[in-house]
Amino acid sequence: MINAIIYCENEFGKVDGKVANGLIRHSEKYRILGVIDSSKAGLDAGEHLSGSKNGIPIFQNLDEALGNLSNTQIHFIYGIAPNSTFLSLSQRNVILSAMERGLNIVNGLPELLTEDLEFSQKATEFEVKIYDIRKAPNRQNLHHFTGKINDVKTPVITILGTDCAVGKRTTSVKLVEALKEEGINAIFIATGQTGILQGAKYGVAIDVLSSGFATGEVEHAILRAHGERQPDVIIVEGQGALSHPAYTSSSAILKGSRPDAVIIQHAHKRKFHCDYPQFRLPSLLSEINLIETFMPTEVIAIALNHEGMKEDELENVIREYESNYTLPTTDVLKQGCSDLFKALFGKFPNLEQVALSYNNACQPQD
Amino acid sequence: MINAIIYCENEFGKVDGKVANGLIRHSEKYRILGVIDSSKAGLDAGEHLSGSKNGIPIFQNLDEALGNLSNTQIHFIYGIAPNSTFLSLSQRNVILSAMERGLNIVNGLPELLTEDLEFSQKATEFEVKIYDIRKAPNRQNLHHFTGKINDVKTPVITILGTDCAVGKRTTSVKLVEALKEEGINAIFIATGQTGILQGAKYGVAIDVLSSGFATGEVEHAILRAHGERQPDVIIVEGQGALSHPAYTSSSAILKGSRPDAVIIQHAHKRKFHCDYPQFRLPSLLSEINLIETFMPTEVIAIALNHEGMKEDELENVIREYESNYTLPTTDVLKQGCSDLFKALFGKFPNLEQVALSYNNACQPQD
Repeated sequence: MINAIIYCENEFGKVDGKVANGLIRHSEKYRILGVIDSSKAGLDAGEHLSGSKNGIPIFQNLDEALGNLSNTQIHFIYGIAPNSTFLSLSQRNVILSAMERGLNIVNGLPELLTEDLEFSQKATEFEVKIYDIRKAPNRQNLHHFTGKINDVKTPVITILGTDCAVGKRTTSVKLVEALKEEGINAIFIATGQTGILQGAKYGVAIDVLSSGFATGEVEHAILRAHGERQPDVIIVEGQGALSHPAYTSSSAILKGSRPDAVIIQHAHKRKFHCDYPQFRLPSLLSEINLIETFMPTEVIAIALNHEGMKEDELENVIREYESNYTLPTTDVLKQGCSDLFKALFGKFPNLEQVALSYNNACQPQD
Repeated sequence: MINAIIYCENEFGKVDGKVANGLIRHSEKYRILGVIDSSKAGLDAGEHLSGSKNGIPIFQNLDEALGNLSNTQIHFIYGIAPNSTFLSLSQRNVILSAMERGLNIVNGLPELLTEDLEFSQKATEFEVKIYDIRKAPNRQNLHHFTGKINDVKTPVITILGTDCAVGKRTTSVKLVEALKEEGINAIFIATGQTGILQGAKYGVAIDVLSSGFATGEVEHAILRAHGERQPDVIIVEGQGALSHPAYTSSSAILKGSRPDAVIIQHAHKRKFHCDYPQFRLPSLLSEINLIETFMPTEVIAIALNHEGMKEDELENVIREYESNYTLPTTDVLKQGCSDLFKALFGKFPNLEQVALSYNNACQPQD
């Protein structure tokens, strides 16, 4: 594991802090030593995010963080994912200042710091490295769509949603963890920078790829995982929404993964797109209809995001969705994945057999 | 106009020769002096393509072409658009040899020759220029989607289709020409390399752009045309198909143009995608349903591609479509645009008023 602190000034726990939020929830590659967000300084990151402490402190600023951490070789993860095209001058200065203190920079933005003269000179001067997570592979190493995805007989489940930053990746990661606990060899295919930062072995940040390659790289990641790991099930992270006013990533992910089933993520209380507030969110019904019209697949479960809801309201809303849509419905952060299992085992009985065999084998013997 | 010859060995008139075919049909920027395709050497390009001569000869090879042309400053347009990622060695040699003879290179491939050392050195050595038509603008000059397209009250019509290379651009260009003849200020928005090579003033080859920018650049081209030209109607070229197994361009074009109406292009006899023959084409009905589910718009007319059909069969098929879909149906290459006018004037009566005023003003006065 690589030691790291995450910079997320003013945004930790919010929509634009989704890179930081994701890494606090799940991180296989980086050992997160702290978060920098002066607006929440002194709080515990886990408690602020989900109500249960995880011992990761939130610092006032970089000085305080470095003063409190004895480790060396610390990576500085830029944990804000804004919608703007370029960093502001003050945001640039935050990163440059971290470099001057000897920290390596992990950058998930579409803006590539390795291709920016000021950053590359600073890296040379202070002997630090810059990792541009979203740098697209060279064209020579990119894959066109081939159609071989149709030969994959292992169930492919894609987690789509009705908006950006709505919980698709969180549900994907939680579901993969829960499946593994049942002895099911589930593989996660990341399609965004946070999933890759979290340590996903398969996938690429597809939003920097052009039309043909985005689809081809999703297919290729699945084919590679399928060939190398013989999984029982493949869980593909979605991006944005198929109906999103601006982004085509969901379209590429659906075409590249050609899923046997879809789980749809939705925030019951969100009425407008988080990054395009002039556009209303689709109804869940219309999004399900669009997905099933777009691709011969089936939405088999609903994963809710509880933002803006209290526990008891969430309970009622879940029951309402289950009744209206006749689909298993859950909030994986509050209620775990058992309802998603119900949907998966109903559609793919072999998966249930794998879990049963595993659990039988794990029983204490007389 | 710039003097040019088009290289289209073995592919002129076929699907992969679509850049050459398009330029022979319509060219506002280049004066096409000849086509190179040894398999059709000696024929007239117009006659081979559409049955009526246009005086553009087809040559055996570059030597023959240059021997027959007295003009200097000739541009060499690479007129094949294959599905493969890179040029083969022999294809590279054809272009290098043209450069050695002093020809400037016009390249519509996604492979950028200006970024290829061998080509850029050859260009310096022989003092010729390379124009990479599909080179994406710098990120600094690209536009994110803003949603301002919703403020455009001028009718926006997008020409979509059920496959690549099915006639969307041809229908778009013919329709714009026909509208202009009626005094209607119609603006064409190109979204692919051929439209831009043909001289379109607005648009960008979107298939080299990533998710957010593809949508944003389509929107931006429309906003710019709308602001600069006060058009009566805006015609947007589609790419691929919304249901295409690999490409997401149609998705970006629909999101960026948010059309008031769609005209759909279809090849009645084509059963499989031309570049993915393992995938069946959608039925026209399912594609129309998908488009209207994807975006709040309306398919108002069908433009057929007559490939594989004789005149009388085409007539019958057109009548069959009109009856089955209750939509005006035409093949613009064989029957012109009057049926598309019927659809447009029905949906946008103001356009008919513009045409009536123009034609009244053009009547000879007593």
